[in-house]
Amino acid sequence: MKKVIIIVSGGMDSITLLHEIADRYLPENILAISFNYGSKHNTMEIPMAIHNCAKLKIDHKIIDMVQVFSNFNSALLDKKDSEKIPKGHYEDSNMKKTVVSFRNGIFLSVATGVAETVGARQIYYGAHAGDFSIYPDCRPKFIEHMSKAALFGTYNQVKIAAPYWKFTKAEILKRGVKLDVDYSMTHTCYNPQNGIACGSCGSCIERCTAFIVNEIKDPIKYQRSWKNQIEYTRKILNTKKK
Amino acid sequence: MKKVIIIVSGGMDSITLLHEIADRYLPENILAISFNYGSKHNTMEIPMAIHNCAKLKIDHKIIDMVQVFSNFNSALLDKKDSEKIPKGHYEDSNMKKTVVSFRNGIFLSVATGVAETVGARQIYYGAHAGDFSIYPDCRPKFIEHMSKAALFGTYNQVKIAAPYWKFTKAEILKRGVKLDVDYSMTHTCYNPQNGIACGSCGSCIERCTAFIVNEIKDPIKYQRSWKNQIEYTRKILNTKKK
Repeated sequence: MKKVIIIVSGGMDSITLLHEIADRYLPENILAISFNYGSKHNTMEIPMAIHNCAKLKIDHKIIDMVQVFSNFNSALLDKKDSEKIPKGHYEDSNMKKTVVSFRNGIFLSVATGVAETVGARQIYYGAHAGDFSIYPDCRPKFIEHMSKAALFGTYNQVKIAAPYWKFTKAEILKRGVKLDVDYSMTHTCYNPQNGIACGSCGSCIERCTAFIVNEIKDPIKYQRSWKNQIEYTRKILNTKKK
Repeated sequence: MKKVIIIVSGGMDSITLLHEIADRYLPENILAISFNYGSKHNTMEIPMAIHNCAKLKIDHKIIDMVQVFSNFNSALLDKKDSEKIPKGHYEDSNMKKTVVSFRNGIFLSVATGVAETVGARQIYYGAHAGDFSIYPDCRPKFIEHMSKAALFGTYNQVKIAAPYWKFTKAEILKRGVKLDVDYSMTHTCYNPQNGIACGSCGSCIERCTAFIVNEIKDPIKYQRSWKNQIEYTRKILNTKKK
């Protein structure tokens, strides 16, 4: 019997959360869901979700939403006419190009339907404090009302929780390290080149910042050496502060 | 420029609402969306949506969600192992078999994403008072919080409205008649046989009741003659009251 559903992209936050949930529930009570929505990095991310679910013996469902998101525009989507992924800090206004409209609303709605179908009453997802400067569908007010929509819109009164919504990525990493999460098996970069993280997109900058703050070497490869990546990240952060 | 999005199933309620919206906005400002989600009656319903949008010169997008809903269970879905559509009144507990978990939540979320993509700030859908005895995702509390989730979860502060939420199907029909809606080009039956309405499912009973209350002959065909269909509907309604 499934008790909880967790949405797992294959990124640092959701993989850390997956380990926390695996620590609290029996694996047979957990169902992980990943969405293939046609993003440029889905082919890198989803295998990480598969790997970690298999390692933790958690059932994993991959839901194909490429058709649905073909109606959307975003630099993040792998479409003929989509723009390039911008470089720079996550909070920069040009990072808005990477927004996929109401993506979390859509993912949470589908997860709510699946929860009701399998009898699970709790959904977890890894939205965190770093997200909502740019993604409106990560804001606390969105989470609050989306949760209530799920609660009132289901027979089982399905609950949605985003336990990291107050945490920075650095704080999430700190929790994950305690849980022995292998971060070499997580993917973050929006713009991987030949399978290697670009080190320049907002998503890479935020990830590197988390490792720098925790004084840990990121185990994944970047286009630059880790030392140069630290320097590059610091430069971007300083530009941002000015 | 699209100003409004309307979710159109091809049923009486959404087609009536489509005519009301067409009465208020220029056709070029309206985008209609239908979802093919693999229901048994989608192949009957969607052509009605296509017909009415074409007649009103409204752009129409059909979004394929069959893959997504293949993860769901409902007598309504056209799946190998799905149950038969039950006969009887809409509010009977066995009609619960026709619930597709959180379907409206999912449709509204996708519509919200499309609205944000095309710049529309208003979404309409045809949930009505007859729906929420059985469908939790038609309840006023669901609509209220789903609307706020869309509002806070988008840059454009997309609004969701269900203008019929207080109306019975009979009241909706009355409005539609005033707008000259051709109800022969709407589909309601959950269990059509050779393209003809069964007259026995909860959805047919509710539709027939609306026509009987308004003292209008339903222009669509049923397995029974209209006279016998009236009698059958009255019998079901009387059984319900006891």
